[in-house]
Amino acid sequence: MAGKILIVDDVATNRIVYKVKLGAACYAPILASDGASCLALARSEKPDLILLDLVLPDMSGTEVLRHLRADPELASIPVVVFSAEADMKARLAALYAGADDFLAKSVDDQTLMARLRNLLRGREAMAELESGAAPIRALGFAELASGFHLPGSIALVSHRPETALRWRHDLGAHLPDQMTMMSREGALSEVQLTPVPDVFIIESDLADPMGGLRLMSELRSRPQTRHAAICIVKNGPANSDAAMAFDLGADDVVSNEMDPREFGQRVARLLQRKTAADKLRASVRDGLRMAVIDPLTGLHNRRYAISQLAEIASRARSSKRPFALMVIDLDRFKQVNDTFGHPAGDAVLTEVARRLAANIRGGDLLARIGGEEFLIALPNTDLANANTIAQRLCRAMQEVPFDIPGFAPLDLTASIGLAICDNGQTWTEEPVAAVIERADQALLMAKSGGRNQVTISHAAA
Amino acid sequence: MAGKILIVDDVATNRIVYKVKLGAACYAPILASDGASCLALARSEKPDLILLDLVLPDMSGTEVLRHLRADPELASIPVVVFSAEADMKARLAALYAGADDFLAKSVDDQTLMARLRNLLRGREAMAELESGAAPIRALGFAELASGFHLPGSIALVSHRPETALRWRHDLGAHLPDQMTMMSREGALSEVQLTPVPDVFIIESDLADPMGGLRLMSELRSRPQTRHAAICIVKNGPANSDAAMAFDLGADDVVSNEMDPREFGQRVARLLQRKTAADKLRASVRDGLRMAVIDPLTGLHNRRYAISQLAEIASRARSSKRPFALMVIDLDRFKQVNDTFGHPAGDAVLTEVARRLAANIRGGDLLARIGGEEFLIALPNTDLANANTIAQRLCRAMQEVPFDIPGFAPLDLTASIGLAICDNGQTWTEEPVAAVIERADQALLMAKSGGRNQVTISHAAA
Repeated sequence: MAGKILIVDDVATNRIVYKVKLGAACYAPILASDGASCLALARSEKPDLILLDLVLPDMSGTEVLRHLRADPELASIPVVVFSAEADMKARLAALYAGADDFLAKSVDDQTLMARLRNLLRGREAMAELESGAAPIRALGFAELASGFHLPGSIALVSHRPETALRWRHDLGAHLPDQMTMMSREGALSEVQLTPVPDVFIIESDLADPMGGLRLMSELRSRPQTRHAAICIVKNGPANSDAAMAFDLGADDVVSNEMDPREFGQRVARLLQRKTAADKLRASVRDGLRMAVIDPLTGLHNRRYAISQLAEIASRARSSKRPFALMVIDLDRFKQVNDTFGHPAGDAVLTEVARRLAANIRGGDLLARIGGEEFLIALPNTDLANANTIAQRLCRAMQEVPFDIPGFAPLDLTASIGLAICDNGQTWTEEPVAAVIERADQALLMAKSGGRNQVTISHAAA
Repeated sequence: MAGKILIVDDVATNRIVYKVKLGAACYAPILASDGASCLALARSEKPDLILLDLVLPDMSGTEVLRHLRADPELASIPVVVFSAEADMKARLAALYAGADDFLAKSVDDQTLMARLRNLLRGREAMAELESGAAPIRALGFAELASGFHLPGSIALVSHRPETALRWRHDLGAHLPDQMTMMSREGALSEVQLTPVPDVFIIESDLADPMGGLRLMSELRSRPQTRHAAICIVKNGPANSDAAMAFDLGADDVVSNEMDPREFGQRVARLLQRKTAADKLRASVRDGLRMAVIDPLTGLHNRRYAISQLAEIASRARSSKRPFALMVIDLDRFKQVNDTFGHPAGDAVLTEVARRLAANIRGGDLLARIGGEEFLIALPNTDLANANTIAQRLCRAMQEVPFDIPGFAPLDLTASIGLAICDNGQTWTEEPVAAVIERADQALLMAKSGGRNQVTISHAAA
């Protein structure tokens, strides 16, 4: 699948030339001679990149691009538009239509190959993020987030003030984003970076000939700026050394003589991509959090509680200190749902979670492990202390009635089963499952003993 | 926090020289003159990197390293050991003790700075993976995975067969991993990469002077090899062009004249890191899956079901087609748990999930939304079809008794509440929550009607 590149050109000789070049670079070239076959091959072959001639017999390259970008299956394939002519209007149209780059056919092979590697690398990184975020996106978070379009922040880094001023003027005419001129030192000293720029535009010969590229590598090594988009601006035609810039990770390389509209469009695209990648990273973060959290109460979930409990038990064994385990069940909670409806039940559970959290200590583990069932583990806690805390939790439920929207406040109580595990004192080691089982049994006794009470399971035989 | 570098050297002049150099590169240098203050500052300042002199007044640099690596809080800080002498024994000892690199004090500034950027970049990437995987690691998956230590796979890429043979001989004496000699084309043509190498060892002047570096960039742009560790081998002293190799993303740069033991130790360390990063990536993938899956049955969880239901409802509205929603509840399931214990109950739930999944269609949504409660949504389905499917599900529960380990097979039935949502036909749009509510009400009627039956909720008024 990898390295499949679709070459679209109406001139057979051109197709052959690129086929040979790409084959030598160990890519798998596929050939199309017009727009319709390009679209058909894009759908059937799913190429990793498309090299697209601007002039085709059946439709323009820009029109092909529009079709590609409108198809969700194909929209993310990188497309490099290739043209013999350098007409500004055509360049702009191709970039607006979603081209990832627009290269003259005269571009040297080294730059071309470096640009292809660079785009393929970016595509792989996005695909990896996408595949991670995919299950989470099903939950609809990404959709919510994409509603916001805050203006971005763009850093202009040049050692010639007049250059930075001109960039600000040129880009300001096309972009709504915040622009800040800064020196290399400013870009690297984090205190000045508020907000952290989304895009850095960097002069290639900053202070010395390799200064811009070096600054790029430095930004990539710092936590705040490692995901920023970076555009290198070369003085003179963009070719020389552009290959190195692409391999070093530049997201775009432009000439300082570039038309301001094209410059603006390229920077806008960098910003758009950076924002899309940020959102994917945020989805992944949210998703990972969700794996361990009960969505209703925000407490840890059962899965997390069980794994952490093993951890607490193991630490208790090595430190030879006891730990306490409580299973807490709301009394007659089913009636709340049946009488007042599920939203009322959910409000009660949320308030219970709040009261439990308010009455334990920082290092204690609190989780919702079932509908109306909660678990608390107390490391380094003996029976007397655990019992005090359990009694306090019982009172915390009983003393203040629970508010239910639309109804009178409701009196509720909880039953608690308490077990102490003191493996440090015994020869045989009690498994965590057995401790939970003892707490469960104690809870059943609390229920059958009349509810609203703490029952203690004494150590296993 | 970023760019904080701890310089440890007993000679004041050296400390000042490096302080000036690192300050000019916009790092924040911190100074220590002996091992004890290095360890104290490492703990209090949490530097991003440590430049450590080998000879210190109170202990050797290698001893300092061992202390750093033994402390979980400090173990991941990159450490570059710096020495005036080039004694092989000392180099090896420092690398075995966990140095990330061992540089002669005579190294040129450009290489030094590029190496620092390179290590800091690697550290940031790992830190980002770690922070993503942290909530998941609490679940214990990473611990499980780390029990395995399969031999790695190492690719030896040189255009001189005698060089690759020597590498294989030298490394084979120190490493248990599988080694494969290959050409540049072999490395890039995926069919030959089984298994995909964990480490690529690449001659820098492969075919042409920049050939090795270019191959590295190409490997980084291909999905199978983008996370591989890459070691560039230079003919002659490692300094020249090493800076560029580091900035291009080499994980290590060594000289072809390096002592085989040092070469082996460096490659072993690359392999170890690559494996650790692979595990973190796997944890993140597992964690993301867990956010949408019910761990017991492997079905989708409630959270996922609710979000997907909104999606199904929205598609149904735009296509003006009805969809069906079922809520399925096992009858008298509490008795299974109470009589046979939770493991028996879990076995029953798993089998119920299997039977439900076997009796619906590919595009249908199936989730466990509560203890013994399941949800099925059927897109593009009218009442007659949905009812047929619901009746089939009822029979699927009833017809074959459920196996319970250690007991006689158990007869069980389910009740099903069925609601059809046909927003395409109505003026007012019924919210998803209202459809669920109707299915819930129908389920209650099925229960009160004697269980083991399907009850249909007719469209909302």
